[in-house]
Amino acid sequence: MAKPITSEQSIIRYDGTTLIHGNDHIAVEFPLTIMLNGEEFATMVCTPENLEDMVIGFLASEGIIRFYHKEVKSLTIDENRGFAYVELYKKPMLNERLYTKRFIGSCCGKSRQGFYFQNDVRTAKTSSAKTILSAQNCLALMKEMQNNSTVFKDTGGVHNAALCDSEKMLITRTDIGRHNALDKLYGHCLIKQISVRDKILAFSGRISSEVLLKASKIGVGIMLSKSAPTDLALKIADELNITTVGFIRDNKMNIYTHPERIV
Amino acid sequence: MAKPITSEQSIIRYDGTTLIHGNDHIAVEFPLTIMLNGEEFATMVCTPENLEDMVIGFLASEGIIRFYHKEVKSLTIDENRGFAYVELYKKPMLNERLYTKRFIGSCCGKSRQGFYFQNDVRTAKTSSAKTILSAQNCLALMKEMQNNSTVFKDTGGVHNAALCDSEKMLITRTDIGRHNALDKLYGHCLIKQISVRDKILAFSGRISSEVLLKASKIGVGIMLSKSAPTDLALKIADELNITTVGFIRDNKMNIYTHPERIV
Repeated sequence: MAKPITSEQSIIRYDGTTLIHGNDHIAVEFPLTIMLNGEEFATMVCTPENLEDMVIGFLASEGIIRFYHKEVKSLTIDENRGFAYVELYKKPMLNERLYTKRFIGSCCGKSRQGFYFQNDVRTAKTSSAKTILSAQNCLALMKEMQNNSTVFKDTGGVHNAALCDSEKMLITRTDIGRHNALDKLYGHCLIKQISVRDKILAFSGRISSEVLLKASKIGVGIMLSKSAPTDLALKIADELNITTVGFIRDNKMNIYTHPERIV
Repeated sequence: MAKPITSEQSIIRYDGTTLIHGNDHIAVEFPLTIMLNGEEFATMVCTPENLEDMVIGFLASEGIIRFYHKEVKSLTIDENRGFAYVELYKKPMLNERLYTKRFIGSCCGKSRQGFYFQNDVRTAKTSSAKTILSAQNCLALMKEMQNNSTVFKDTGGVHNAALCDSEKMLITRTDIGRHNALDKLYGHCLIKQISVRDKILAFSGRISSEVLLKASKIGVGIMLSKSAPTDLALKIADELNITTVGFIRDNKMNIYTHPERIV
């Protein structure tokens, strides 16, 4: 049986003058441990839905797999105990030491200056997307994603990520963790073999370097966000040829990098 | 020379009808790698200020150290290359395998059911704080913290954490990472040997289980947040005797656990 993703709890509300007993919907946070070929690989805390997508997206984003059907022999989720068992046909291709090893680029060269993990240098892709998006549709896609999220409206405690074309939202995923929402989208695209190169990513969270790198690994050319970017994310976006648009709120927005895709 | 924590960048603003070129302040994101007794321990991306505080708070929060003066022989930050070199008098007391090892509690027992890492079972503390806080001061402390953050006002891209007593804000720390802002506070308290048991933590981010566990390790009895909690965070807060108050906005708020401290 699927786990609930919100839970009802009794709380006390304060309205500025009085304390009132009531109920509220709270986002469920679920720890899931990924066992990779029999070994404990990582524990994530997440919203317990679309867990297969999340596990596959996470492994791809971490550079462990590149394809789903060719590389993943089996994936079993034990929701009761909070474990995901992944068997790959081959041993994971990544050296554990490399995986989180600090990458020190040349200070002088322009190349990949924002990257700090060797693994990202290997897995992030420069976008060749030809996608064009109207400014009005930037606003509309963000609105569509947010209006669609009943969990967000209920709890205020989750992030949304959506894959869109230039007219409409195609797939949306929700999670208490910003990164997980992106991993769920990525995993879904890999499992369903959906091409993302000409798609657009809409996201409720801030654009940090990690988020931008994930967008690059997913493969989109345009990243829309309700929130602020960081300077490092913008450096990487500039270099990887990704258009970033932030602070999409109340019919306004800021375009930070590669504005040539916004018309 | 200290690194800047915001950077000015040229952007294009869209106001619903026109695209206008302008400038904006963007939060700087800085990768810092911690070398612990000569070995690469972790890389964090952070706002480059109060880095000593952050490193010490992070090591304490991860269970590597418990005290600053007794255990840390030296701490040197190389801001240009992005490295923090920490020498401990003793070898780190933590077994690397235990540190991220999934903790599987009994499903039946009430004890520490929310914990998913063995390390947290060891380091999180049940609060015995006798602190009492008025509902009006919950609102006032959150307002004071937010009004105080010029970086937030400039960039919209950082989180704030503040240590308060029941009347006023005492120390505040800012970071692009929610966890880092808390680690900076924690580290400052350890370095300056500030007692936190009767203090209050105000925080701009959501109360996830990780955030709640950090609050517990810091040692406060009351945690205030502008945002939503998760159900797992509330379970842990209930068990560790920590008062959680969320959605503190516009003179309203919700009290979730141990309301006896709010009067």
